[in-house]
Parts: sequence; structure tokens; C-alpha cells
Amino acid sequence: MVDIRYDVLGIGNAIVDVLVPAEDAFLVEHGLVKGAMTLVDADRAEQLYAAMGTGTESSGGSAANTVAGVAALGCRACFVGKVHDDQLGNIFAHDIRAVGVDFHSAPATGGAPTARCLIVVTPDAKRTMNTFLGACVELGPQDVDEDLIAASAITYLEGYLWDPPGAKEAFIKAMGAARAAGRKVALSLSDSFCVDRHREEFLDLVQHHVDILFANEQEITSLYQVDSFDAAMQSVRGHCEIAALTRSEKGAVIVTDEEFHVIDAEPVDKVIDTTGAGDIYAAGFLTGMSQGRSLPECGRMAGIGAAEVISHMGARTEADLKALIQDKLG
Amino acid sequence: MVDIRYDVLGIGNAIVDVLVPAEDAFLVEHGLVKGAMTLVDADRAEQLYAAMGTGTESSGGSAANTVAGVAALGCRACFVGKVHDDQLGNIFAHDIRAVGVDFHSAPATGGAPTARCLIVVTPDAKRTMNTFLGACVELGPQDVDEDLIAASAITYLEGYLWDPPGAKEAFIKAMGAARAAGRKVALSLSDSFCVDRHREEFLDLVQHHVDILFANEQEITSLYQVDSFDAAMQSVRGHCEIAALTRSEKGAVIVTDEEFHVIDAEPVDKVIDTTGAGDIYAAGFLTGMSQGRSLPECGRMAGIGAAEVISHMGARTEADLKALIQDKLG
Repeated sequence: MVDIRYDVLGIGNAIVDVLVPAEDAFLVEHGLVKGAMTLVDADRAEQLYAAMGTGTESSGGSAANTVAGVAALGCRACFVGKVHDDQLGNIFAHDIRAVGVDFHSAPATGGAPTARCLIVVTPDAKRTMNTFLGACVELGPQDVDEDLIAASAITYLEGYLWDPPGAKEAFIKAMGAARAAGRKVALSLSDSFCVDRHREEFLDLVQHHVDILFANEQEITSLYQVDSFDAAMQSVRGHCEIAALTRSEKGAVIVTDEEFHVIDAEPVDKVIDTTGAGDIYAAGFLTGMSQGRSLPECGRMAGIGAAEVISHMGARTEADLKALIQDKLG
Repeated sequence: MVDIRYDVLGIGNAIVDVLVPAEDAFLVEHGLVKGAMTLVDADRAEQLYAAMGTGTESSGGSAANTVAGVAALGCRACFVGKVHDDQLGNIFAHDIRAVGVDFHSAPATGGAPTARCLIVVTPDAKRTMNTFLGACVELGPQDVDEDLIAASAITYLEGYLWDPPGAKEAFIKAMGAARAAGRKVALSLSDSFCVDRHREEFLDLVQHHVDILFANEQEITSLYQVDSFDAAMQSVRGHCEIAALTRSEKGAVIVTDEEFHVIDAEPVDKVIDTTGAGDIYAAGFLTGMSQGRSLPECGRMAGIGAAEVISHMGARTEADLKALIQDKLG
């Protein structure tokens, strides 16, 4: 077996976020589904952006946020994703490398510009995302290096990858390589509408290919098309080795064949922007696993990370998360 | 006399800020002068950016921040400045228009990309700026529409415009047009090192061409090459109609031939990032003047704006400044 080079290798859409605060009326006026991630084409993105107020740009992308968190917590991380060779692509590449993540994926020189996600943050701190995939559609199996996957303890994949066809192929290749090498595969279900778009395939993934599953309440009930959290939890139990199911302020439930843990949410003074909450939750959890911690401790680390990221604008942690966790967990 | 179309027309370098928190050791390691604005070329900008951590991008530029604040406060504002036709240029143009500022300047299609300012924010909330002027060097007299200047009650100019030669010519043309039309000219001295670079010319401006001067303590003492704030204040009195001199937590002093006001600083819970403090101070002051308020009230409005902008990251106001001022001043 090859040596482990990365604790976590993440594959995802490489996106720069544009965060703009707005009232709920803005969502209504523009027909946006609150809390969801909606795919938009270039024209719709232009039209929405023109209607939005002054923004703040920061690197985003679900799996990218997660590996950035993993690296910030001191583990070895790598990211695979596609930017264009443009200013936003440079910003994305700079930011993910600056936090210590290895990022080897060559930028696209033809085709669409770097992906942007226009995020409307309403006064209740909820984020509504409108993603123009741009260069992400250029990601394909050719970008997946099977040797790197084999050298990664956990390969972490975002469900959003099933939207661009080439990225889905990259996802499948990476998953196969990880399993062939005896490594773990982790999946985030990403978004309940994304689950809706790909339910049958996601069900197959969860039952047959995924070791560690991350999902929030909306996503897991959408996956199993059930009405209650408990019913969804009973369904997922035994489908994959570990399922970490998050429920916002109600905390999270972690289930395996033998174990069952209910972890309370970390207290937060004021929730400012929930962008990235699930991503940093996964980062804390995977870091805990890499450090050989118990499942309840992994859950606490995950919750501490999520609490930090929702207490400010933007999807990447600002505080010294490592020190924060050291302080609370030792 | 033509009708007034804008309360304030601002001319300045059109810049996108890249804000990155860092320890003081970073400044030492890279030879950066704390609190100052240093001009850097493309290579030095690349090198510094590579060494910096994960950033947040937001529209900046001194006069641009000021007119954005003026518009946010409900006055009619226009901006003249040069971006390149690229992603950062689009972000700049979007953000300044989104807040209600008219921005007609055509983007450059040749030459350097849109200007960036790499801003290191240290734990004491001080900002150290490294500006790559990029497309700003393309601004010239051809971008100044004398009819628009004549239709603006106040033309606001940043001292930084004296760094790129073409922009300096634009400055001089605009100032001449404003005076010919019987309008007011306002100037911000921008930065003590900028004052150092252009002292003789700035002295001439202040004595003969400027009606309203904004300067902080370092800038005004640098201008007159004196050791004390009081000495600088005595020197500037009578040189221009109104001088608004800011002293951070010590508040501000406003002097005219006949009046003299000492305005205390607004209380701030926690200073996070001082980027834009002077710019929003000027915005509040000019808005007060446009509304025909007394000088002490103008000073209060200015201070309330500055207090808001330093209580978060970034150089543009996040809170509803109009409501904030309404609340405090009526």
C-alpha cells in the first residue's frame, strides 16, 4: 500500500462567492428559493448581479471550503477542481494554497470564466445561492490522478459534482480509485434540490460506495423521501459506515451500525451568515477522524467549526480554529 | 449657472481591495511601513500576494469609498476613475453603481489590469496598504467632463491622484472647471507619504485652490513639516475655507476663519479594521454640508460614519448609515 500523503483530498466545484446582504423582498422579487442552491446561466447571473447591492468576494466552493478547514486545523489536504485562468481563478488558487492546501489542477484557458456563486444573505443570516458554474464544467476524469487518490486517507466528494457531466465522471473515477486502494470515501449531499436532481444515483452511492456521509435534515429526508428526521435516520443506518446528520441549532446526530450519538450545537452569540456551515462541519469531523478521535469528539470539533463560520460573513473560518478546538476539547 | 445634478462628484483611483489579516511580524518580514500606503509594481504585488494569507475582496479606492458613502447617505453622487475591462473592473463598477453612484468612465481595454490594493490588517486593526495602480494610470484629462463638474456642487479629489501623471492632469482640469463654475473643491491629503511626495504642490493647492480640506494628524503635520497638531492647525487656518482635521480616537477639529470646533470621536465597541475611516469621515461631512447642516453637525455625521466603518472589515459601510445618523442626530 502506498504511503499516506494527504489526510483528506477534496474534489469539488471551484467557486468564488459574491456575498451581498439583502432583505427577503429581494428573494421574492427575483423568484429565488430561500436557503437553496440554484444553478444559473451566464445571462441570469448577469441579471441577478445587476440587481444586487455592493458585495464582498471570497473564495468558496463546498468541498474547497472543507479542505481549507481541514488544512487550517493542521491536517494535510489537497483540492481538485477547475478554475479558468483569470482574475477570479487566481484569487481562488491563491486563497486555497494560502491556507496550506495543495492545489495542482491546471486552470482552463478556453471556455467559460471561473465560477461565481451569487449569495444573498437575508437578515435571518440564511444564505440563498445562485451558482454560475463557469469553468467547473471543464473538470473531468483527466483531472483525477489515481495515485494521489490512493495516497489520500479520505477522498471527500460534494454532491454538487453531479451537476456538470464531466465532474460527475471525475467523481466516479475518484471514488473507484479510492475504493480500489482501500481508502475511505466521504460524500456531502450538498443541497436538498441537488438530492432531488440525482436521487436514484445518490441512493446507490450511499448504499454501495460511500463510507462517511454528511447531510443536513432537509437533504437526508429528501434522499429517502420521508417526512421525519427520525425516519430518514433509521433508513440511512447501515447504508454507510458513518452518517453525520446535521440539524442547525438542534445539533447533530452521528450514526453507525453500532453507535448512535446526539451532539448539541455549540452556542453562538449571533448568527451572521450561515454560508459554509455544513462545509466547515465536515472539515472538523474529518480532521477528528484523521486524528483518531472518538465519534462524539469528531462531532464536537465539527460543531465548533460550524459555530465559528456562521458568526461572520463568508464561508471560510476567520478565527484560529485549531486554537479554538484545543481550548474546548484539548 | 447650470443646475446642480450631483451633490458630490469624486475623482480617484478605482481600486479593488484585497484584505488579509496578518501579524505584525509579516510587516517586518516584508519591509512594509505600518499604516502607510505604498505603491508597488506588478512583480512586487505578485510577490506580496503570494506571501499573504486567504483574503476577502471588496471595492475600495479612497474617493470611491467617499462617494459610495455620500450615496448611501442619500445624496446624489458621481464617480470618475479608471478600471480595466476585466473581472475586478466589473466588480468595482457593479459595487459603486449598486449603492447609487453614477459611474460613466469608460473602462480601459488595453494596458494594465484593474488596480488592486493588498491590505494587511494587523491585530491592532491598523491597515497597511500596498497599491498596484494598474489601469489607474490610464486616467487622464479626457475622462473629465467639464459640464458634469459644473453641475456638481462639490468636486472631491484624493491626493493619491498625484501619483499617476495622467490622473494629476485630470485633477487639475477638474479643479479648474469647478472653480470656473463657482463650485466648491474638496481635497483629501490621503496619506502622509503621499504628502511627502508632493508637498510643494499640495501646499499650493491648499492655499490657493481648495475650499474644503480633509487631513489626519500625520498628513497635516507632514504638510507643514511641524511637530505638533496645534502648530499644523494654526498653519492651515485661513489657507482654505474649511479644514476638517481628524485624530483617530481623539476625535476631530474643524477650523474656518471664524469658527473652531472640537468634535469627540464616536464610541466604538471594538475596532476591527480602520480601512476607509478617513474616506467615510469625508462622506459624512460632505453629506452634512450638502444638507446645509452646521459644521459641528457635519463633524458628528462624519464621526458616526467613521465609527461604523472601523467596526468591521472593509472600507465601505455595511450598516444603514442613514438610519444610524437619523437615530443619533435627527
